[in-house]
Amino acid sequence: MGVSGSGKTTVGKKLSAKTDIPFFDADDYHSPANKAKMAAGIPLTDEDRKDWLSQLNKLAVEHLKTGSCIIACSALKKPYREILSAKIEKSIRFIHLNGNIELIKQRMIQREGHFMPISLLESQFKDLEDPKEAYVIGIEKDIETIVAEIEHELFQKASFGIIGLGVMGKSLARNLASKGFSLAMFNRHVKGSEEDVAKNFKNEYPELQASLPFDDLSQFVESLQRPKKIMLMVNAGKPVDAILTQLLPLLNKNDVVIDGGNSQYLDTQRRAEEAQKNGVYFMGCGVSGGEEGALNGPSLMPGGSVEAYDLVKVFLDSIAAKDTAGKPCCNWIGPVGSGHFVKMVHNGLEYAEMQLLAEVYHIFSVCGKKPDEITGILSRWKNSGLESYLLEITIDILNKKENDSDVWLIDKILDEADNKGTGNWTTVTMTHLGLPATMISTALFARYISSFKSLRVATAERLGNGKAFISSDEEEVESAFRLARLINHHQGFWLLQTASTEFNWNLNISEIARIWTNGCIIRSTLMEELSEALKSDENILLSSVASESIKENCSNLLSLVSKAIKAGVPLPCLTEAATFLNSMRSAQLPANLIQAQRDYFGAHTYKRTDGTEGKHYHTHWKP
Amino acid sequence: MGVSGSGKTTVGKKLSAKTDIPFFDADDYHSPANKAKMAAGIPLTDEDRKDWLSQLNKLAVEHLKTGSCIIACSALKKPYREILSAKIEKSIRFIHLNGNIELIKQRMIQREGHFMPISLLESQFKDLEDPKEAYVIGIEKDIETIVAEIEHELFQKASFGIIGLGVMGKSLARNLASKGFSLAMFNRHVKGSEEDVAKNFKNEYPELQASLPFDDLSQFVESLQRPKKIMLMVNAGKPVDAILTQLLPLLNKNDVVIDGGNSQYLDTQRRAEEAQKNGVYFMGCGVSGGEEGALNGPSLMPGGSVEAYDLVKVFLDSIAAKDTAGKPCCNWIGPVGSGHFVKMVHNGLEYAEMQLLAEVYHIFSVCGKKPDEITGILSRWKNSGLESYLLEITIDILNKKENDSDVWLIDKILDEADNKGTGNWTTVTMTHLGLPATMISTALFARYISSFKSLRVATAERLGNGKAFISSDEEEVESAFRLARLINHHQGFWLLQTASTEFNWNLNISEIARIWTNGCIIRSTLMEELSEALKSDENILLSSVASESIKENCSNLLSLVSKAIKAGVPLPCLTEAATFLNSMRSAQLPANLIQAQRDYFGAHTYKRTDGTEGKHYHTHWKP
Repeated sequence: MGVSGSGKTTVGKKLSAKTDIPFFDADDYHSPANKAKMAAGIPLTDEDRKDWLSQLNKLAVEHLKTGSCIIACSALKKPYREILSAKIEKSIRFIHLNGNIELIKQRMIQREGHFMPISLLESQFKDLEDPKEAYVIGIEKDIETIVAEIEHELFQKASFGIIGLGVMGKSLARNLASKGFSLAMFNRHVKGSEEDVAKNFKNEYPELQASLPFDDLSQFVESLQRPKKIMLMVNAGKPVDAILTQLLPLLNKNDVVIDGGNSQYLDTQRRAEEAQKNGVYFMGCGVSGGEEGALNGPSLMPGGSVEAYDLVKVFLDSIAAKDTAGKPCCNWIGPVGSGHFVKMVHNGLEYAEMQLLAEVYHIFSVCGKKPDEITGILSRWKNSGLESYLLEITIDILNKKENDSDVWLIDKILDEADNKGTGNWTTVTMTHLGLPATMISTALFARYISSFKSLRVATAERLGNGKAFISSDEEEVESAFRLARLINHHQGFWLLQTASTEFNWNLNISEIARIWTNGCIIRSTLMEELSEALKSDENILLSSVASESIKENCSNLLSLVSKAIKAGVPLPCLTEAATFLNSMRSAQLPANLIQAQRDYFGAHTYKRTDGTEGKHYHTHWKP
Repeated sequence: MGVSGSGKTTVGKKLSAKTDIPFFDADDYHSPANKAKMAAGIPLTDEDRKDWLSQLNKLAVEHLKTGSCIIACSALKKPYREILSAKIEKSIRFIHLNGNIELIKQRMIQREGHFMPISLLESQFKDLEDPKEAYVIGIEKDIETIVAEIEHELFQKASFGIIGLGVMGKSLARNLASKGFSLAMFNRHVKGSEEDVAKNFKNEYPELQASLPFDDLSQFVESLQRPKKIMLMVNAGKPVDAILTQLLPLLNKNDVVIDGGNSQYLDTQRRAEEAQKNGVYFMGCGVSGGEEGALNGPSLMPGGSVEAYDLVKVFLDSIAAKDTAGKPCCNWIGPVGSGHFVKMVHNGLEYAEMQLLAEVYHIFSVCGKKPDEITGILSRWKNSGLESYLLEITIDILNKKENDSDVWLIDKILDEADNKGTGNWTTVTMTHLGLPATMISTALFARYISSFKSLRVATAERLGNGKAFISSDEEEVESAFRLARLINHHQGFWLLQTASTEFNWNLNISEIARIWTNGCIIRSTLMEELSEALKSDENILLSSVASESIKENCSNLLSLVSKAIKAGVPLPCLTEAATFLNSMRSAQLPANLIQAQRDYFGAHTYKRTDGTEGKHYHTHWKP
C-alpha cells in the first residue's frame, strides 16, 4: 500500500519474483464502469471503490486457501483496508511504502510517460489514514534493500510475542500457536530455577514448532513484526514494573503491550501513562478461565485505547472462548484500566459464588449428608437452571476420593481459605465508591475468618459450638441458593455501572455479561440469562427476572437463613443476601437516627423528609 | 540552666532586677553534706543531687503560688529537670544559656578568682542532655541583649499555638486558655467568608483575653515561645498539606506540629517524614468528643516520637477528660501514625455502635412503639450496665419534639446516612490487614445502602416490603444489643492488636480502652469494664467477660436476629454479630471446599489437616 508513485508495483513484482508468490496489481481489477469514469477524469467515490476492493479481497481469500499472494493497492483509508481484510484478518499484512510528498513528486517527474497532476498527489496524501497496523518502510532506500527488508519482516519474524511462561503464559502461547499465529516467546533466565524455559517449552509441544524461543529480551523484541504486539503474562505487582522498565526502551510508536495478569487497575492506568511517553500502547486485559481456559479459550476483558485494541483484536478474538452464538467471549471493554477493573469485579463475584457453594456444602454437611449424597443433590440442580462451571467443579471435588481409598479428599483439606488479592481489591474499591457490593466483602471476610483456624478451635472449646441440626430440605436450599446468586450478580453489575459512571468509562454491562458466559470461572446459565436481561434493565433487582425469582425464592432464603442463625450455623453470604434484600426493599430505614446522632455530637446537619432539596438542617438537641 | 561559666547567675540577676522577680542561685541550696563533699573535691552523685533539686523545686512551687521566681541551676540532665519540674510542669520554663566549650574556657580564664579545671568543664559538657524543652540563647551575645531576649520570649510570647478556628479549633482553644496557657491563635483570611476570625473569637470569650489572635501565619509563628508547639485544627486532607507547606519553612529544630484532625494515618506518616527533614516533629493526635468534648475535655490519642510527646504532654494532659480515677484520658499511643490509626478505629467502633442503636430503634419502631415509649425503655437500660454517651444522646434525640409541636423531630429526618471517611478507612484498612472487623464494615455498608433512598423506595414498590411484626420483648432486644456491642468492641481491639503487631507499634490496648472511658463519643460503662479486662486478656472473645455475656445473651441474639430476618426486617449489625459469633465458634468451616476449588481451576494448592506444617498439596481433580 501507499500513495501513487510510492513504488508498489515495482516492489511487489520484485518481491513476487524472489518469493514465488503471485503478484496482482489492483488497478487491473477495476470494473468497466470505474475504468470509464477514470478515463473521463471523474474521481472515484468510496462507493465506486467498494466492489473493486471486495474483488481484491476475494482474490486474496482464494489464494490464501492454498498459498498466498501479493497485491499492490493504495489502500489509503482505514475502511478500504477493512474491506480488503474481511475474513482474512489473521493472515493479511499491510506493507506501507512510505515517502514524503517532495520525494514522490521528484520521482514522478523523472519517470517518463507517467504524468500525474500534483493536485492529485496532494489529495492522495490527504486521504492517507495513518495505517497503524502496517509495517512501514521508507522508500528512500534502494529497491533491493526494500524487498529484502520486507521479506525478512514477513518470513523471519513472529506476529505476536508472549513474555512470561508460567502456567497461564504457556497455555495462552499454545492457544495462539494452535490458531496459526507465529509466536515469539520469552522467559527470563534465572540460573538454577528458570533455564531455557522458552526453548524447552517449544520442544515440548508440536504446535509450537514454528515459534521462536528467547531468554534475551532484546532479541525477543527484535524478532517481532511491526507494530509489535506483546502480551505480558508475569505476576501482578512489581514484576510487571520490572519487565516494563526493560521493555519500553526497546519499543517504538504504535507497538502494543498487553498486561494479561491480574493487575490492579490503578497500576494499569499509571503504566499506560508511562508507556504513552514512548508512543507505546499499554493495555490491561483481564484473562479468566484458569489454566484450562487459557489453553482452550479464556474469557478476555481488554481495556485500553480503541486504536490499540484494533491492532490486537484478531489475536484476542481468535483465542477467546465462544458464546452460544459463536461470538468470541472478548470485546473492547473501555479505556485503559477498565479491563482490569472488570476482571477484578469478575473475581469478586467469583469469591461470593464460591462462598455460596461452600455454604450449601456446609448446610448439607451439618445435616449429616456425606459428599456423595451432596453431589447427588448438586447434580440434580444442574438441570434446573443452576448450571455453572463452579457447580461442576464442586461436584468433581466432592466426588474425589483419596488414592483409591474410601476417604473423601475434601475431608482432608484444611479449612483455611487463602486469597490472592482481587477479592480484597474489589472490597476496597467498592468501599471507596460507596457501593454496597456486600456479598463480595462478606465472602472475603469469611475467608479471613476461616484463616484463624486455631482461634476458632479455641473459641469453640471455650464457648461451645452451639451448632444444631438445621431442618432444611433440598428444595429450600436450592431456592435460597438461587436467589442469593442473583443478588450477588446484581451487586457486581451495579458496581460496574457505578464505576462506569464515576470514571466515565461508558461500559456496556450486557456485553460484559456476554463475555462472561463462557471461558471464565463464573460462566453459568444465569450469566446467559442476565446478558439478555441487562440489555433492557440496568438494575437487576428491578428487572422482571429478579421480581419473579424473589417471588419464588424469597421466603425460602429468609427461612433457611433464619433457621441456620438460630441453630448456630454460620452462612455469611446467604445471610447477607437476605439482609441486603430486606434492606433494599425497606423504603424506611433507621438512618434518620444516625443522622440525628451525627448532628448531635458533631453538628454534621441532616436533611428533612419535607425539606427543601439540598438544604441541611441543624438542631440543638440537648434538653 | 547551662554549664558552669555560661553566665547563669549574671543573667539571672539582671533579669531579676529588670522584672522584679526574685532570683535564687541553686549553689546556695546545697546541703552541708554536699558542700563538704564538694569542698573535699569529691564529685556529687545523682543521688546526692536529688534532695538538692527537690529543695529547688519546692522553692519554685512556693513562689509560684503567689508570683514567680528565677533560679540559676545547671540542670544538665533530663532527670534533674524532671525533679525541678514536678507539679509545676505547666508553668516552669527552662532557659538554656548555650555556648561552645572554647568560648566558655576563654571566658573562665579571663574571669579572675574563679578557676575551674578544664576537665570539669569537659565533664559538664558530657553530662549535658540536650534540653529540647528549653528556650536556647547563645551566650556570644552581649548581656543586655540576652536579658532583653529572654524577657521578650517569656512575657511577650505565647506557649501554645492553634491553627484553624472551626468548631473544634475554637473549643480546644477555649479549653487550653481556661487551663491557664497563653495562646496564639491563627485563622486564615478569606475575604467575605473568613475575616478577622481569630480577633473576633478572642473578643467573644473572657478566657481568651490574654491570647494573641492572627491572620498572618508568620506573625503567628513569630509569637510563639521556642520550641514552638502548634496544633493544626484544619480539615483533614489537602488543607493539612496546604498549611504545612507554608508552615514548615517558618519552623526550627525541635518545634512540634500536632495534627488534631481526622487525618488518614498514612498521610500522617508521610507528613512526619517531610517535617523531619526540617528537624520539626510532626504528631498525629486523635481528638474525640465532638465540640463539647473539645471544650470540656476530649479523649486524646497522640502518636509520634516520644521526644515530641514530652514537649506537648503537659498541654494535652491538662485539656483532656479525666477517667474515674482522675487520670487524663490521654497518653502516648505509639510512633507517628498510630494516634490517627487508633482514632480511626475509634470512629469505626462508633459507626457500629450508632448502627446498633439505630437497629434497636428500628426494632421497636417496627413493633409499633412511639419515640417516647422507646426512650422509656432505653432509659431503663442505662441502669443495667448499658450506659454510654451514644445511648444518652439517643434518648435526648428521641425525646425531641419539633418546635413545641406534638411531632417527633426524628420522624422528620431523612433516612440517608452520610459519612466523612473514617468508617470507610477503617474498612479499607482492616481489609488490607486481613482482619474481619465486620461490625464496622457492616455499619458502613448499612449507611451506604441507606443513601440509596429513591432506589429503596422503588424496590419496595416493585418487590413489596414484606416487613412483618417481630414478636420481640424488651429483654430480648436488650440482651442481643449487649452481646452485639461486646462483639463490636472485640473486633475493634483485635484490629488494634493486629495493627500493633503488623506495624511494630507495641500498642497498650488496655490503656487505649482507658483513654476511651471518658471524653470521647464511645465512652461507656462497657469501655470501663474492658479497660480492666484487657489488662489480662488480649482477646476479648476468650475472656471471662465474654464467656459470661455469651452464656447469658447468645440465645437472645440468635433468636432476635432469626425472627427479624424471617420477618423481613433488616438488622445488619445485629445479624453480623450473630454470624461472626457463629463463625468464630465453628471449629470447622467449609473453607476446605474453597481451597479445593482454587486448586482445581488455578492450581493454587491447599494444606491438609494431617499434612506436614507449611506443606502445600495439589490434586488433579478432573475425573
